[in-house]
Amino acid sequence: MKNSKEISASVISRLPRYYRFLCDLHSKGVIRVSSKELASIMGVTASQIRQDFNCFGGFGQQGYGYQVEQLKNEMSEILGLNEIKTAILIGAGNLGRAVASQLSFEDKGFKLVAIFDCDPLFKGMKIRDLPIKGDDEIEAFCNEAKPDMAVLCLPADKAPEMVDELIRLGIRSFWNFSHYDIHRKYPDVCVANVHLSDSLMTLSYKIKNNDGNW
Amino acid sequence: MKNSKEISASVISRLPRYYRFLCDLHSKGVIRVSSKELASIMGVTASQIRQDFNCFGGFGQQGYGYQVEQLKNEMSEILGLNEIKTAILIGAGNLGRAVASQLSFEDKGFKLVAIFDCDPLFKGMKIRDLPIKGDDEIEAFCNEAKPDMAVLCLPADKAPEMVDELIRLGIRSFWNFSHYDIHRKYPDVCVANVHLSDSLMTLSYKIKNNDGNW
Repeated sequence: MKNSKEISASVISRLPRYYRFLCDLHSKGVIRVSSKELASIMGVTASQIRQDFNCFGGFGQQGYGYQVEQLKNEMSEILGLNEIKTAILIGAGNLGRAVASQLSFEDKGFKLVAIFDCDPLFKGMKIRDLPIKGDDEIEAFCNEAKPDMAVLCLPADKAPEMVDELIRLGIRSFWNFSHYDIHRKYPDVCVANVHLSDSLMTLSYKIKNNDGNW
Repeated sequence: MKNSKEISASVISRLPRYYRFLCDLHSKGVIRVSSKELASIMGVTASQIRQDFNCFGGFGQQGYGYQVEQLKNEMSEILGLNEIKTAILIGAGNLGRAVASQLSFEDKGFKLVAIFDCDPLFKGMKIRDLPIKGDDEIEAFCNEAKPDMAVLCLPADKAPEMVDELIRLGIRSFWNFSHYDIHRKYPDVCVANVHLSDSLMTLSYKIKNNDGNW
């Protein structure tokens, strides 16, 4: 099994997809799956699956296949989904509300514990039983609850100041929907960026070059 | 210059980021930038930038740097941002509304021309001056307007049937926020997937393994 630092970003980015397919197989009552079958379902090669799994010490027995439930549980363990981290969400506009209301955080390793917005119009409104609090309550909340992660759904121009503040308050990981490049100022924090406009431009490129999915 | 089929997915996925940084430099009045300067701003290596740009025939002169405006325009051309494709959006829930209202499609190569939802509650509501139409109007609209792309903001269980219908109506590219794996049934269409829950699970992994951004 490789040290986590040696595992490439592209292997890591494929883990959630393995996990999703394994959950699906498990929910359908499938007990065992070969790398060949899993590859065919996922549209990748069996060799890629074996290589990826080998980064974590492999999970199967040669010629025997993988136990679906066991592999799903190991994948969940690797992804840290069983260790629930607390999260706050900053910015309750359309995007923030979509993220807070449509996504199930709990089975992805997080629990959403508070939502903040600078607009007093939102104050007191609720999303998933969480009242939207004002930005002026962030400091007291963080000092008290010490959340692990912040979801940033605020405009890029407001993000730098907010990130400074959140880092001062002890937050060290961010799910970042803004275009602010947190890592340039804070190289040591954990960040997953969601760049919707980059994704849309990539689709434009694919259409221009008539590429299929990859 | 490489054939577009030979350019790796990871190079392509970096192009929108180059484009964003070049737009930013251009808006700040920067005329010329060296690969070393651009690398430092973007937090990558100068060698990676040169390698990536070489896939498209390179853009600079040795020791002279890149003309920011020209490079921005070439990048826009490569991404196909100047050739506006028409897009419809399916699913006007929180996520669909966030995507339709918060994202500027026009400068990313697309024009949003219609929004559909199966819920009659939404009918007649407007997002960005576009009235939300009922699902029963999709066929007539597609036959008339022949849109190029569909943004899928509907639940995964409703996606397969909708994709069958849209493909029957001539749509060949999708910006897919649902978890439905379009490419398994239709390997030849263009798809960019946005898997928010995969991104959240990746963040969980990074936190567990105390990885920084990459």
